Formats: sequence, structure tokens, C-alpha cells
Amino acid sequence: MASSLDQLTEALRRLPGVGVKSAQRMAYHLLQHDRGGAQQLARALEGAVATVRHCARCHTFTEAEVCSTCLDPARERRQLCVVETPADQAAVERSGSYHGLYFVLMGRLSPLDGIGVRDIGLAALLERATDGEVQELIVATNFTAEGEATAHVIAQALKGRGVTVTRLARGVPVGSELEYVDLGTIAHALSDRR
Amino acid sequence: MASSLDQLTEALRRLPGVGVKSAQRMAYHLLQHDRGGAQQLARALEGAVATVRHCARCHTFTEAEVCSTCLDPARERRQLCVVETPADQAAVERSGSYHGLYFVLMGRLSPLDGIGVRDIGLAALLERATDGEVQELIVATNFTAEGEATAHVIAQALKGRGVTVTRLARGVPVGSELEYVDLGTIAHALSDRR
Repeated sequence: MASSLDQLTEALRRLPGVGVKSAQRMAYHLLQHDRGGAQQLARALEGAVATVRHCARCHTFTEAEVCSTCLDPARERRQLCVVETPADQAAVERSGSYHGLYFVLMGRLSPLDGIGVRDIGLAALLERATDGEVQELIVATNFTAEGEATAHVIAQALKGRGVTVTRLARGVPVGSELEYVDLGTIAHALSDRR
Repeated sequence: MASSLDQLTEALRRLPGVGVKSAQRMAYHLLQHDRGGAQQLARALEGAVATVRHCARCHTFTEAEVCSTCLDPARERRQLCVVETPADQAAVERSGSYHGLYFVLMGRLSPLDGIGVRDIGLAALLERATDGEVQELIVATNFTAEGEATAHVIAQALKGRGVTVTRLARGVPVGSELEYVDLGTIAHALSDRR
């Protein structure tokens, strides 16, 4: 086994969800069938590391000082939606029913992984949320244990700061049959009925 | 979404088994938590593309003209084991019970994918197998439909060339209980009993 092949396999293992076998398969595939793809990936990695940084206002990935969403004059500046990742932000955007601004935590509280309040930039969020412009903070962290804990901490921190803190509604997903919905969701949908 | 982030996601999708969501997750992870890993991967890709080539004798990946296995004077030169990939070669090596040389097809016959006799370097294998030194060709392609077809073509091509062509034994795997072994395997184990 060649040493630069080993190095490539080792480097591919740093990708999330890639183990020894997958890394080997990826390395073989690139070298045997797609050397152009390997070079393209190398260039894309170098390019992204050199240019991608965080938006100074919402913390999402951008190549500019402030991202295009934050600069968009058509967005409602009184609403701020807090999400965990850029992927979550994209999901909210695709729903087409939100036109305010965002704050991307780039993570969530996860004491087991050593991710505390400081790591998710809560201080920056507080500063952003209390700049006088924001009236409603919509917490759209995931409905997992960690996402709920993060939502709780955010709500506590903003108590009495003159900002309304709301949370995405919990309930039965559109298109689903009650028979197959889990009990916790049904309990929430009952108590939050309207 | 930044354009060099999109380019990175697009490039990551060229890895086998990586779809849109995984590529996005990989890109976010590298940019948020492991920029060093991203640079290491970029360097490893460049390095491997520049230096890794095929061994002139056995076709496996190597950085030299001829790989270290082919050059090893301790190997039995009268036996040649034909495998589909370097990973298969590594598996045979790990078994510790083969001390001959190898020929790595770097693929298998797969008419549905447009991979024919020419693509798996059958001509090079024939030349290698009939160089006067090789007395036994052990066909260790996979026991899949494609691997079996490849084995068949190799056996046909070497008929009457003065080389004994053998195939890995089919049978019940070590450590398995008959009750859970598939019927085809049991049928083979019965007919090949010793």
C-alpha cells in the first residue's frame, strides 16, 4: 500500500460518518475513476477554507463581512429566527413563510460533548436580540433534548429584556395519520390545540 | 449560501455514497470544526493524484514503477492470485495463508455499467500469466454474479495455455451455523465436500 494512498485514506476519515472501509473505497474510486474529481475537491477545499467565514450579524457562513440575507432591505427587521445550523436556516427559508432575519447558533448546547453556553455564542445572540430593532425572537432550534435545552437557555436569558420570545409550534406533522404519530406529539398537539 | 461553500458541497458529492445532505453536513463540519482537516484532505488529494499510479506488473496502486509485493524476493513466483481491488488483495494478505504474487484487475466485468473485457485489462493479465514463470492462477474475484462472470472469462481465456486455473473454494463460512447459511452455499458445500 502506497504511503500517499494511506495519507489520503486517513484524511478522508476526518469527514463525519466516514469509517476505514468507506475512506478506502472513496480513495480507490477517486484514484481509479475520478482523478479530475479529486483535484476539483482539493481546489474546492482550499477555496472554501480561504474564503468562507461567519457573517458578522447572523453568524452563518458567508464570504462577505455581512451575508446577503442580513443585507436584504426587503426582510422584516423586527423578527429574528434562531436556528442551529445553516441547513436549518435553509429549511425555514424553503417553507416560504418567514421573511425576517436569522441568527445561526452554529451548534447547540450539548454538555455531554463539552459544548456549553459560550460555544454557541449566546452572548452575541443577546447583543443582537437587544439592539432595539428586534421585537420578536422566534426560537427554531430542533425538537431534540439538546435543541429544547438550548431553547430554554435562550428564553431564560432574554427574560425581561423587552423582546417577545416565541417557539415553533409542536404538533402533528402535515400529511400524517394519527395512528402512526408518537404519543408525545399527540399529547403536545392536544395541549396546544386551537 | 456562499458560492465557494456550494462548490465544496458539489465537489464532496463526487465521493461514492455521498448525497446532497451528507455533502452539506461534511462541508459544514469541516468549515465549522475542522479547517485543519480540510487543508490536510486537500493536500492528501493533490499528493495522491500526483504520485499514485499502477504497478507495471500487478496493476495495484503504488508510487513506484513496480510495487513492493512484486519486488519481494521471498514471494512464491509460480502462483498468481487474481483479485478485483486492492482491498480484496489486502483481505487475502491478512489471511496469512498466501505467499505468491497478485494481479489486481481494478474492476470486474459489468456489462450493465459498460465495463467490458478491455476495461479490466484482461490482455495484460494473459500476458502476465503466460510469461513462463506462473504455473497456477488462483482466481479470487468476488462470489457475486459479476465476479463469477469475470472468473469465467479468465478461465476461458487461459484454457490450453499451460497454466492451471483454480478458484477459491465455496462453502460454509468458518464459525457459522448451518441453520442460518443460505441454500446456495449449502448446495455448493455439499457438492464440493471432501
